[in-house]
Amino acid sequence: MTTHALFPLDPSLDLVLDRVVDVSPRLVWAAWTRPDLLMQWFCPRPWKLVDCRLDLRPGGDFSTVMQGPDGQSFAMTGCYLELVENERLVFTDAMKPGFRPILPSREPGAVKLGVMAPLMFTAIVQFIPEGTGTRYYVTAVHGNAAIRQKHAEMGFDHGWAAALDQLVELMQGKA
Amino acid sequence: MTTHALFPLDPSLDLVLDRVVDVSPRLVWAAWTRPDLLMQWFCPRPWKLVDCRLDLRPGGDFSTVMQGPDGQSFAMTGCYLELVENERLVFTDAMKPGFRPILPSREPGAVKLGVMAPLMFTAIVQFIPEGTGTRYYVTAVHGNAAIRQKHAEMGFDHGWAAALDQLVELMQGKA
Repeated sequence: MTTHALFPLDPSLDLVLDRVVDVSPRLVWAAWTRPDLLMQWFCPRPWKLVDCRLDLRPGGDFSTVMQGPDGQSFAMTGCYLELVENERLVFTDAMKPGFRPILPSREPGAVKLGVMAPLMFTAIVQFIPEGTGTRYYVTAVHGNAAIRQKHAEMGFDHGWAAALDQLVELMQGKA
Repeated sequence: MTTHALFPLDPSLDLVLDRVVDVSPRLVWAAWTRPDLLMQWFCPRPWKLVDCRLDLRPGGDFSTVMQGPDGQSFAMTGCYLELVENERLVFTDAMKPGFRPILPSREPGAVKLGVMAPLMFTAIVQFIPEGTGTRYYVTAVHGNAAIRQKHAEMGFDHGWAAALDQLVELMQGKA
């Protein structure tokens, strides 16, 4: 299996999404970094993003508020770790803005009063040119196997794929 | 008080070292990024660094092994988060290489079998030009007040200042 991972993969700890889409890296990057665009595709329907903060620098705030079809919402806070224009974007929910490490006080991923306890993962999202499109290569990096498993059960594969479909639908209209 | 911090400081969670030294930012950067130099100053004497790995990229390995005067040693593992040549360097012990979040299983900072449990902090080390020298501005960012307090009691102020004195002594000979 070809890997495009920036760091050695550990199958017991990592989840990978690897898809080629017919949208240029420049437009995929825009979809990730412009709040007006991110709001339109980031949550798999019928959920939607109702707020977000994008401070596009290492250590900068990357926070979102998702809302479900019954009006329930939950907030997630994280920070960017690396941003390489049109190439890749790395963020984590294991740190608050300013690179501040989080010490989880509740079970990772648990939701309480509309706030989701961090899953304690990092997402490395790579946009690799392939023909006129993009190889969209996501590595979700976890601290232990139980959290990887929980993230898988929460629907990492389906959720990221569905959101990507929405990104493609949105951005193909802008090419 | 003038702050040079890249992110808003929280006095209840952060520790700061702010010193001006008569060594250029370029040489301070070299002292931090060349293993042969780092080995000579990073540990306050009589402790010394006996091994280190410096993979100078965001997410890259930054690991050290320290040895005390009685031969006791302990290893620390971390990863770089941001590297801006001659300007700043950010690393954390709350992630393993590859941006992998750590879930501490022991008390932060506790040493067992020669391995130190991560303190769960991030160090933002800035090298700001000032005259012919450098304002050496370090922010140690913690996840809670107890860990900040523990880091202070472990001698953050004295330790980082003593190491800096050693850096200056080493690099002034190379100016």
